[in-house]
Amino acid sequence: MADTDSPTAGASPVSPIDRDLEAHLAAHDDEQLQRLLALLRIPSISALPAHAPDVAAAAEWLAGELRRLGLDDVQVVATPLHPLVTARWHRRPGAPTAIVYCHYDVQPVDPVDQWETAPFEPFVRDGRIVGRGSADDKGQIVMHLAALEALLAVHGALPLNLTFVFEGEEEYGSESIMAWLRANREALRADLVVISDTGFFEGNIPALTVGLRGITYAQVDVYGAPVDLHSGQYGGVVENPVNALARIISALKGPDGRVRIPGFYEDVLPLPEAEQARLAALPFDEEAYRLGTGVRELVGETGFTTLERRGARPTLDVNGIWGGFQGEGAKTIIPAEAHAKVSCRLVANQDPDRIFALLRAHVAEIAPPGVRVEVRLIHGGRPILTPTDHPAILAAARALEAVYGQPPVFIREGGSIPVAAAFGEVLGLPVVLYGLTQPASNAHAPNEWLAVENFERGARAIVRLWQELAELPR
Amino acid sequence: MADTDSPTAGASPVSPIDRDLEAHLAAHDDEQLQRLLALLRIPSISALPAHAPDVAAAAEWLAGELRRLGLDDVQVVATPLHPLVTARWHRRPGAPTAIVYCHYDVQPVDPVDQWETAPFEPFVRDGRIVGRGSADDKGQIVMHLAALEALLAVHGALPLNLTFVFEGEEEYGSESIMAWLRANREALRADLVVISDTGFFEGNIPALTVGLRGITYAQVDVYGAPVDLHSGQYGGVVENPVNALARIISALKGPDGRVRIPGFYEDVLPLPEAEQARLAALPFDEEAYRLGTGVRELVGETGFTTLERRGARPTLDVNGIWGGFQGEGAKTIIPAEAHAKVSCRLVANQDPDRIFALLRAHVAEIAPPGVRVEVRLIHGGRPILTPTDHPAILAAARALEAVYGQPPVFIREGGSIPVAAAFGEVLGLPVVLYGLTQPASNAHAPNEWLAVENFERGARAIVRLWQELAELPR
Repeated sequence: MADTDSPTAGASPVSPIDRDLEAHLAAHDDEQLQRLLALLRIPSISALPAHAPDVAAAAEWLAGELRRLGLDDVQVVATPLHPLVTARWHRRPGAPTAIVYCHYDVQPVDPVDQWETAPFEPFVRDGRIVGRGSADDKGQIVMHLAALEALLAVHGALPLNLTFVFEGEEEYGSESIMAWLRANREALRADLVVISDTGFFEGNIPALTVGLRGITYAQVDVYGAPVDLHSGQYGGVVENPVNALARIISALKGPDGRVRIPGFYEDVLPLPEAEQARLAALPFDEEAYRLGTGVRELVGETGFTTLERRGARPTLDVNGIWGGFQGEGAKTIIPAEAHAKVSCRLVANQDPDRIFALLRAHVAEIAPPGVRVEVRLIHGGRPILTPTDHPAILAAARALEAVYGQPPVFIREGGSIPVAAAFGEVLGLPVVLYGLTQPASNAHAPNEWLAVENFERGARAIVRLWQELAELPR
Repeated sequence: MADTDSPTAGASPVSPIDRDLEAHLAAHDDEQLQRLLALLRIPSISALPAHAPDVAAAAEWLAGELRRLGLDDVQVVATPLHPLVTARWHRRPGAPTAIVYCHYDVQPVDPVDQWETAPFEPFVRDGRIVGRGSADDKGQIVMHLAALEALLAVHGALPLNLTFVFEGEEEYGSESIMAWLRANREALRADLVVISDTGFFEGNIPALTVGLRGITYAQVDVYGAPVDLHSGQYGGVVENPVNALARIISALKGPDGRVRIPGFYEDVLPLPEAEQARLAALPFDEEAYRLGTGVRELVGETGFTTLERRGARPTLDVNGIWGGFQGEGAKTIIPAEAHAKVSCRLVANQDPDRIFALLRAHVAEIAPPGVRVEVRLIHGGRPILTPTDHPAILAAARALEAVYGQPPVFIREGGSIPVAAAFGEVLGLPVVLYGLTQPASNAHAPNEWLAVENFERGARAIVRLWQELAELPR
């Protein structure tokens, strides 16, 4: 999947934006690249307390850029953890208002020995910008800055009103922004939310992500005797918590990939035939995808395709398990306890709290006698599904088609962006996931990269997005 | 179970051994107790390399005692790990020869904060000798020394020939002695083996253990993708190694307690009706036993009683499991791999290697597609079952009845003593498990103890055993 640096789209080499804007962008492409490299050099890892000053430095850098561009109300907003950076340009009364969200924090760099070079000493090679955060999500931030700069320099104004919200703890749970959103509903009045934190379809095919799965993440704890028992003396007369946990887990999902929690599928919206057809028509190389995962065989819920399973169907996975002896050799015990992290990925219209209640009830139902079983919620997040015929989605599709020369594909991604669901829910706004990177960009992994071409075209796609959205009826 | 210090047997307060022997033993009971305390002060923990000098010191102490008693060929035999201590008294040609086995090493003391006092500063309180090794197995060693001393002092001779083999790594796998046994078959010619490393029945009822379970201990490894995958991006399209392992484990034993490995029960000898009746007649307080384990409910194979399940039926337990994320909170991964330690306790006539082959074949059969599954043997040990009508068992039963005033019960224990099976197999000899401690003695746990009464009567029971065995036809 990594051999597709060049967009497979892009038949039209002519810029789809007006000549002056294009001339300005082309004249400043390298300057914007240097700007991105400067931001990439700040190791703003939100998960590691030692990097808190770096996160703060990235926030200040970003606020400085927004001030330089002449935006209003540029603020670095303190939160319980890492700051938000907010700004606005609301000088076109009567035009639509969009909230723009990206995040300026990055993932940790482990395993650092698998990086070809230092993660925070970014460089450009073979058309790729390599460094932590290049794709996720600093590259998209600087694309937005470049688009702003071009529009303001050439036209002296934006075609619509924008409110910027840049987060500094997206890679660490987005907790602070959730409370902040609820407390600032009024100030965040807008017509829609544009989030640039996703990517294109396999092989760099322009795409709009219209679905993100939600999540219910729980822990199952099984307790037997108060201490480990000798497996010779007690084997066969007491329930073994690990055996019990294995039985519970295997009762949660069948070998057919179906989740066996009663009621689990009750709220799932069936995939419309038109979308099934659209997914089936995607140029998806399943064998290349399998090779990318490194597994022997792709498996999943009977009756669905891989793309359907990945984005349009809910599922259940154990994320971790532990209990008893884990060392070399043998220890003959019946462990006192066993534990598992169990999470469900949810699709529209499933509710994370209801799914947790169903999970807990089912586990209680099947828990064997002789052990005590507890299930507790660790966190939940709602799924997102934006109708593909929503005017904002259609506008975004027009923008992508104009810039990339082909209409984007609509995709549902398997992951969750809790803050995306929160924007939609708390503010009651449609969310457009306008992501411009390649799926194979090694986000969260060593040697993260962003194609220079995606970086440069992305700025143009954002310019065009604002132009398309400006035309939306209010 | 700990409120039964006094033997429930012992109606006869009159010593069943002759007056001079009893007088000598009675005159030296306290001296023998002091001797035991001296041995208990040596922290001969075989599992911890730092204690190797202590294990060596205990071996030297023991060799010194055997020399003081005038035994022949007293040797401290070096092995790849901890030494054996051997000695013999073969001065009665024509009489039977017994090999006597005990072990002078002890378990580690963790969790040391749960000990009332220091584990290697033994003391006597309320009729109990408290200290690591008091029951397992140093107390029984000193009972043997006391019996020897009395017989040699009063009669100037033993009634039969004895070969002593004291091991220093029983609590660490008995590896060295296995090779030594095979290499010394000739020197170990005898009529039977007496092992004092078991105990009485619940509540201190005199007992002879005629069955010990064997073991097949294996590890199951399940491999999926080469690295952890994002559970959002890949959940539902790749097999999860932990889910797969849970499914495998739950296919190994049913909720009815039956092992589901095809062929698993094929070689199991059915429990004779007479023995079923004998087990059923034992004064077994199941509720007290349950309380001792701390579990909510005793469970097990349908159709069998707790005592049958514990000693006469094979079973399967997971001794440990691990895979993926084990920390606080959440990590949304599909683990790259998952592992479990799985062991089967075996009963007569099951073969550990055959059981491993069946286990491996069954796991291969049920392993889901999409993952690679490996099963490897960690170790195996054969079960033991001595017929209750064997002349040596009958002689031992007579000895216990004479000393405790009631015939012993015959029990099958759930644990394994690999060296016991090895003595039987390598030397082709019957094994008499002549253990004289209480089952509730906290062997392997904090605050290990031995009742002073068991210690003193034990020496008499050993004297009487030698007298009974001396009469065996050769």
